[in-house]
Parts: sequence; structure tokens; C-alpha cells
Amino acid sequence: MTSVGTDSVPFHGAHQPGITTPLHARGHLIAFDLAPGAGRKEAAALLRRWSATARTLMAGEPAGGGPAAGAGTDGGHDTGIALDAGPSSLTVTFGFGRTFFDRTDLTARRPAALDPLPAFSSDHLDAGRSNGDLWIQIGSNDALVAFHALRALQKDTGAAARVRWQMNGFNRTPGATPHAMTSRNLMGQIDGTGNPKPSEPDFDRRIFVPATPAAGTPSWMAGGSYAVVRRIRMLLDDWEKLSLTRQEQVIGRRKSDGAPLTGGTETTDPDLDRIGPDGKPVIPSNAHARISTPEANGGAAMLRRPFSFHDGIGPDGTPDAGLLFVCWQADPLRGFVPVQRKLDRGDALSAFIRHEASGLFAVPGGAREGEYVGQRLLES
Amino acid sequence: MTSVGTDSVPFHGAHQPGITTPLHARGHLIAFDLAPGAGRKEAAALLRRWSATARTLMAGEPAGGGPAAGAGTDGGHDTGIALDAGPSSLTVTFGFGRTFFDRTDLTARRPAALDPLPAFSSDHLDAGRSNGDLWIQIGSNDALVAFHALRALQKDTGAAARVRWQMNGFNRTPGATPHAMTSRNLMGQIDGTGNPKPSEPDFDRRIFVPATPAAGTPSWMAGGSYAVVRRIRMLLDDWEKLSLTRQEQVIGRRKSDGAPLTGGTETTDPDLDRIGPDGKPVIPSNAHARISTPEANGGAAMLRRPFSFHDGIGPDGTPDAGLLFVCWQADPLRGFVPVQRKLDRGDALSAFIRHEASGLFAVPGGAREGEYVGQRLLES
Repeated sequence: MTSVGTDSVPFHGAHQPGITTPLHARGHLIAFDLAPGAGRKEAAALLRRWSATARTLMAGEPAGGGPAAGAGTDGGHDTGIALDAGPSSLTVTFGFGRTFFDRTDLTARRPAALDPLPAFSSDHLDAGRSNGDLWIQIGSNDALVAFHALRALQKDTGAAARVRWQMNGFNRTPGATPHAMTSRNLMGQIDGTGNPKPSEPDFDRRIFVPATPAAGTPSWMAGGSYAVVRRIRMLLDDWEKLSLTRQEQVIGRRKSDGAPLTGGTETTDPDLDRIGPDGKPVIPSNAHARISTPEANGGAAMLRRPFSFHDGIGPDGTPDAGLLFVCWQADPLRGFVPVQRKLDRGDALSAFIRHEASGLFAVPGGAREGEYVGQRLLES
Repeated sequence: MTSVGTDSVPFHGAHQPGITTPLHARGHLIAFDLAPGAGRKEAAALLRRWSATARTLMAGEPAGGGPAAGAGTDGGHDTGIALDAGPSSLTVTFGFGRTFFDRTDLTARRPAALDPLPAFSSDHLDAGRSNGDLWIQIGSNDALVAFHALRALQKDTGAAARVRWQMNGFNRTPGATPHAMTSRNLMGQIDGTGNPKPSEPDFDRRIFVPATPAAGTPSWMAGGSYAVVRRIRMLLDDWEKLSLTRQEQVIGRRKSDGAPLTGGTETTDPDLDRIGPDGKPVIPSNAHARISTPEANGGAAMLRRPFSFHDGIGPDGTPDAGLLFVCWQADPLRGFVPVQRKLDRGDALSAFIRHEASGLFAVPGGAREGEYVGQRLLES
């Protein structure tokens, strides 16, 4: 047996968990709207309850008393779904959507970075599955532990908030590959090669709001980050009809190992100027890897930390599957937006994907001991 | 790292894989109907393709040539979704529904055990998600490996068959608990305690059709089994409102460790006759564990090997979650039917669950080397 179950991630810290945490085998995204009549006070109480639950569950303990307290205990109790298992690297991450601030009379403290994302020509967004006042990302390497957390956090909302949308995702099970490697998506492509690495000197600057935010960024976002969430449906029936060569031209990388079409290994820089014997660029001008590369986007970088999703067969008979794209950046206007704008105009991949939902959330820094997430926004 | 990825299950054997295989972390159930005009010949060719794919993928190899064959390979190729990972205990199990036999002019060989299940008063069955000509169960400890198999097997159908319904499920990740133990369901209950064990002398007789089937059972079912599939929605919002004591009375077992309310451990036999100080049975007369116990059902026994499911939030705002109940038996009329009939009449649990879909499939014995699954039905 392994340490899969006993692995745990600390709740407290400079940043919230679930951002630089390795990909989880299972994840839930859930957005809530505050209930009519609920305002800043109710939101503060909810964030306090949520933080307490997240801290407890991430430590592998049952929520709010429970079966462990004895068979005779009545009243509030843990559902028991995660009993026996360890926390399995559970993380819970909380964010605020743009609409949260008006509803809590905190408009003056709303970061400009939460201004609505621009519309992209390839968007097919479902408003009912987009945005929301509050957002939670749950990740765990055990599906029952993740579901247990989802139910406990939902129960915490009481009358203060209502579910707006909820999505489920997955990645590889720890140990499924012989050693840790970049994950694949449901197109079979290695996905995440270009991600900034925590070891890089400008990683923190790109992903997190500094401890002393620059002028114009509210101080409550110190140590925070912005999450862009996109439900990206993959048109797999169309994609799988392409030859392997054609798929590799669309992406600009080899499918087998993720190396650029100009050679080397997954981590070799692509040679974007190389011309093939046919007089055309070896990495086509509309290849996804060319257009999304940070070098082509003024050094913009975001940390992509997605889940795959598969919700069975859609009403049209095609698989309702793809990527729950979640990316993290200190400033969406320098991370997601410029890259997506370029992809929207010229990415060969765009014929095989459809952005079906979108969210943008301000994710405050991690809670200190004795503090709850968002306290610096809600109580100062 | 672990052996999660490299573990493999043999395709060939007396029985098909996926019946006595330990619970998988991820599973797909998919049913197909033969396309108009497709008959026995097309079905035989399909089962031959499916068996070849199942054998290849269960060995951890890519389906039908693929990226491993070199970047220049065009035409049919593996999707690549499972590249890098081992087979992760992948199993693929094939079954035939009642309607298959008329469509292939094999009505005379249809087992009587495929006669429709009786209607139960608590059924809320969706015909579009029930039954089907052909059924496949896919299980793996890695979600991408399972999805890869699903896509490869779907592609194999070509024009011969169309998807009728498809469902996704999950169980614990290997290593999430400190040692192997009976799994929990989404009600938090230990589920599967009463399952027959392969070490018991009558296990094979109860679960599998004998190598020399009794009169009345077609010989092609030698070594086979019958699968009953039920999509059982759990009314979790209602269930979680119950006190722990009340939940335990509904089930008849302690939630913490699965022991009967009359004491002991999970494996202790319940004392069904014990009367409490209040003059009532300690295990209530309508407790699920009392009514479903083999002793109360003429020794009927089935091997339950379920997946949990969670398909997000239903249209009514409640979780679309529960159990993909899959049970295996040599004879459904001695396994599932008598137990479900009793549960249908008096089970306290029935107020908290809803049977939403149902399937009954004849699952032939395992293929021998050089043979495909179902060959003895389709070619003799």
C-alpha cells in the first residue's frame, strides 16, 4: 500500500492550498450565489464555517462531530463517507466572483482584475454554468473523500447561499504512471508542458499577488491569485477522425512524448523559425503550441491546473467530455486574456473545442492560524 | 510509487474479468443496440473486434497501432489517452441483453434467466437508460485508462451498433485506506459486508453457471454469470437530515464500523432475534440488513460489485448521485429477484433511494486463447 491516503496538505499558509498542489485524481468545482437577503454578515459567517470545515477535513478529521463520537450521537453529524480513508491530499480553495462585492456592499474593495473577461468569438457560454458570487475548488486523490468534502461544504451554506453550478473532474491516479510526469488530457495530448515551475525566479510574481500589493490592488488580496475557469468541451468524435500527423500539426508537438515537432524532448524549446523541406514552418503558423507559447505573448504566464471531465453522452450523442480548465495568475489581464485572445483568432485547435462555461474568481491569500479565508476582506 | 499502474488482470480464463476483480476506482457502463440491418454476422464480427481490443488494452498496449508506432503513422491509431500509464487493473466485461437474441435470430438460445425482471413498486425506471442489446462494463484504477478503453471500444462498433446509454462510476482509490476494507457508499455506509467470498465452498455455484450447465441453461453460458444493473439514486438531502441513530436503525448496522446493532464487528452475524430493553427488536423489523440477509431469503446470494455515481446536480437541485448497483449471480431468479422483492415490500431504506434504470445481461464465460467472448453463442 501507499501513502496516497495519508498524504495531507496544510490549510494555513501564505497562499491557499490547491494552486501549486500536484494535480488531483478527483475534483469538484462548485459555485454559489448568496441567498436573497444575505449580505456581508452572512457571508463572513459562511466563510468562517467553510474555513473551519476545510481545515478539519484537510487534516483527515470528520466534520462537525460524527460517528467517531459514538453511535448514540444525534443531531449534526458527519456523513461518514470519508471514514476509514486518510485525507488523500484533500485541498479546498475559496474564491469570490465579481457579483459578490455588490451583494455585500464591498464594491469599493473589488479588484479591477475582476472586471468581466472580454468576449471571445469562439465562446458558447452557458450563463447558468458561469461565474457566481462564491466559488470552491475541491481536490483529492480519492473520489469519496472529495465527495465527502463537497457535501460537508454544501451543508455549511445553510440558508446563506444556493448552488449555482457544480462540475466534476479527474486526473491520473497517483502511481498509474511509473514516475511523475506531465498529465495527458482526453485528446491524448500531454498538457501542461509550458507551465511555469515554482523553482523559476519569477514564478511567485506571475502567479500570486505580492504580500504588499501594488497600488490599485486591494490589500486583502495579498498572497492571493486569480482563477479563470473554463469548461472546454472537446469535440472528440471529430478530433479522433484526424490522422496522427494532422493532430500533431494542430498541436505543434508529438503526441507520443510531447516534444516539439522541431525535435528533442518534452522540455526542449520549440524552434519556431525552423522551415521544413516543403518551405513551410515545421511548427505550423496556427499550431496551438506556437500561439500559446509565453514568448509569443509578451511573457504572459499562467499556471494551468486543470481536471478532465466526462459527463457521459450529450443530447447530441457525442461525448460530453473535455477539460475543466483552471488557470492561476497574479493578473488575468496579463495571463489568460492575452493568450486566449490570440488563440481565439488563429488556433488550429479551436475547431475541435468549445468553451461552454466561464468563471473568474479572486482567490485571497491563505488564512493564518486563527483566521478564516477572506477575513481581511470581510472584517477590516 | 506503487504498483497501481502496472497491475494487470488476465483477459482469458474460465470467467470474464471484472466479476471477482477487486472494486475499481473508476468504471464505465455502456449499453448498445445493434444498428438497423445488423444481425448475427455483424454482431460476431463486433464481438471479435471488442475481444481483441479488450485483450490488448488489458495488457497495457495501445489499441490498433498508434503513436508508439511512430509519429508518421497515419490512418487508424490509438487516441493516446492511456499512454505512459500501465493498465491499472483494467477489465472489460461483455454481456448480452434479452433483445439481442431476437435481433440475431438466436431466440432459441436465449436463456430463460433473461426473462424480464418483475416490476417492483418502488421502480422509477427510465427505459432509455435501461437494458440494451449489448452491455460493456469497464473498470480501472485510473480514470484516463478507463476513458481510453471506453473510446476504443466505442470506435470498434463502427456501423454495427449505437450507444443506448452510458454511465460513469467510482470507488476508493487504492491506498486511500490503510489496508483493504469493505468500501463505503455515498450514504457513508459500509456496503458489501454480506457478499459471498470466493473462499466459501458454494461461491462458484452461486455466482457462475457451471462448466456443464444444468438442463435448461444453454451450453454457451458455461462459466458465465448474470449481471443485474440498477442505477439507484440516493436521496441524500433527505438521508443526511436523519440523526445518526435513525440512520443506523434504517440500516441495522453501525455506521462507524458496519457492525450489526446487536454488537461485534463488521463480520459478526447479526442477532436478528435479540429484543432491546424497549421490547422491540434491536435490529428493527424493517432494517435493510435484516431484510436483505441471505438467511431471510432462502440462502439467495449475489455478488454485489457496485460503483458510486455522481453526475452533478439534478434539475430539481438535489445531487444526482447514488449507486451503480451491479450484482452477479448464477441465476437472477434465485439471486437479485427474491431479495429485491422483499426489499421492495418492507425496507426502511426504500424511502431514501430510487431505482432509476435497470438492466439484465447474460455474461458468457471467459474466452479461451484464440477465442472471442460470445463465440460459443455466435458461431456454434
